[in-house]
Amino acid sequence: MAEAQKKKGSDTRNEILDLAVSIASLEGIEGITIGRLATELKMSKSGLFAHFGSKESLQLAVLEEATKVFESEVIERAEKAPEGIVRLLTFLEAWLVSIERGRLPGGCFLTSAALEYDGRPGAVRELTAKVLAGTLEMLVEEAGKAIRNGELASGTDPEQLVFKLYGAIQSANIFTHLFNDPRSLDHARKSILETIEAGK
Amino acid sequence: MAEAQKKKGSDTRNEILDLAVSIASLEGIEGITIGRLATELKMSKSGLFAHFGSKESLQLAVLEEATKVFESEVIERAEKAPEGIVRLLTFLEAWLVSIERGRLPGGCFLTSAALEYDGRPGAVRELTAKVLAGTLEMLVEEAGKAIRNGELASGTDPEQLVFKLYGAIQSANIFTHLFNDPRSLDHARKSILETIEAGK
Repeated sequence: MAEAQKKKGSDTRNEILDLAVSIASLEGIEGITIGRLATELKMSKSGLFAHFGSKESLQLAVLEEATKVFESEVIERAEKAPEGIVRLLTFLEAWLVSIERGRLPGGCFLTSAALEYDGRPGAVRELTAKVLAGTLEMLVEEAGKAIRNGELASGTDPEQLVFKLYGAIQSANIFTHLFNDPRSLDHARKSILETIEAGK
Repeated sequence: MAEAQKKKGSDTRNEILDLAVSIASLEGIEGITIGRLATELKMSKSGLFAHFGSKESLQLAVLEEATKVFESEVIERAEKAPEGIVRLLTFLEAWLVSIERGRLPGGCFLTSAALEYDGRPGAVRELTAKVLAGTLEMLVEEAGKAIRNGELASGTDPEQLVFKLYGAIQSANIFTHLFNDPRSLDHARKSILETIEAGK
């Protein structure tokens, strides 16, 4: 009985989180309100509070959930590729595909969160910065391996390279979701390859 | 008397807009509420409604006001430079400076609005897309002139070039305002010069 109740509680929590992540993907993390979730899920506000305690806890849980989606759609795919330049390119390609047709309808959740919270101090901003910095650091490390492998020129600055590569990801995100430009991923792939070629 | 009242009305409207643009720059256009403006300006909500009519009219006015700031900080400076590659670089440099220390504290207003509204249909999204597309089109036209001047190789694709250049602007925005990275503008300048060099 206690186990069954625990499972039911965890199912409800997942249901709330799924809806909250979908709303946040399209309308921003600040677009989630306890009232709106309660209405759409036909739950009481106090029932919702029992699962998350505060608006900020819910926002943090949403960001963690979106990060898990990114891990499964992007990071885990990249980890299957050989280290160095191939893994770097696999990571970026998986990121582009997740922006265009991943589980979250609004494109790159992390980039949206970055712009939503860069001017709002607090725990959500801190977690956003930590996750995005960690993601970019993975790319910097992979670029470093590519340099040591001799796949990129020894004088390449990995941070400068990743600054440019992340620029292509961000342009792909805006050209896909704001402009609905069907050439957006091709432009991004070409930008990425030109940037890598220039570093060889 | 009628003139004096008109002036007073326009001063109040400007005062409301100035505050609304500052809030939106840091917390997003959805962060503006009539209630919050009324409290901070010690005005009645109905007094505020008399100036803007609806939340959406206020949001559109805020976006127009931020666009005017961009015009004075970026576009007007670029227009003083000779056409072609010099104007292209002047435009991008002015954009970077406006992101780092322009009048709006939250960085690139247009890019933030793009990510805030790409998943929210409506008039604010439409205006954001129009203004951002118009801005990027200016850069595409300038790249076209640079190609015709022989400053860029004849095979250069101006849209592909601007896709990459806008990527450097977006990275500069996030590295400056989320990561507070003091190297952000140098990384962006280097990305821009490498991209232009590769197109020569």
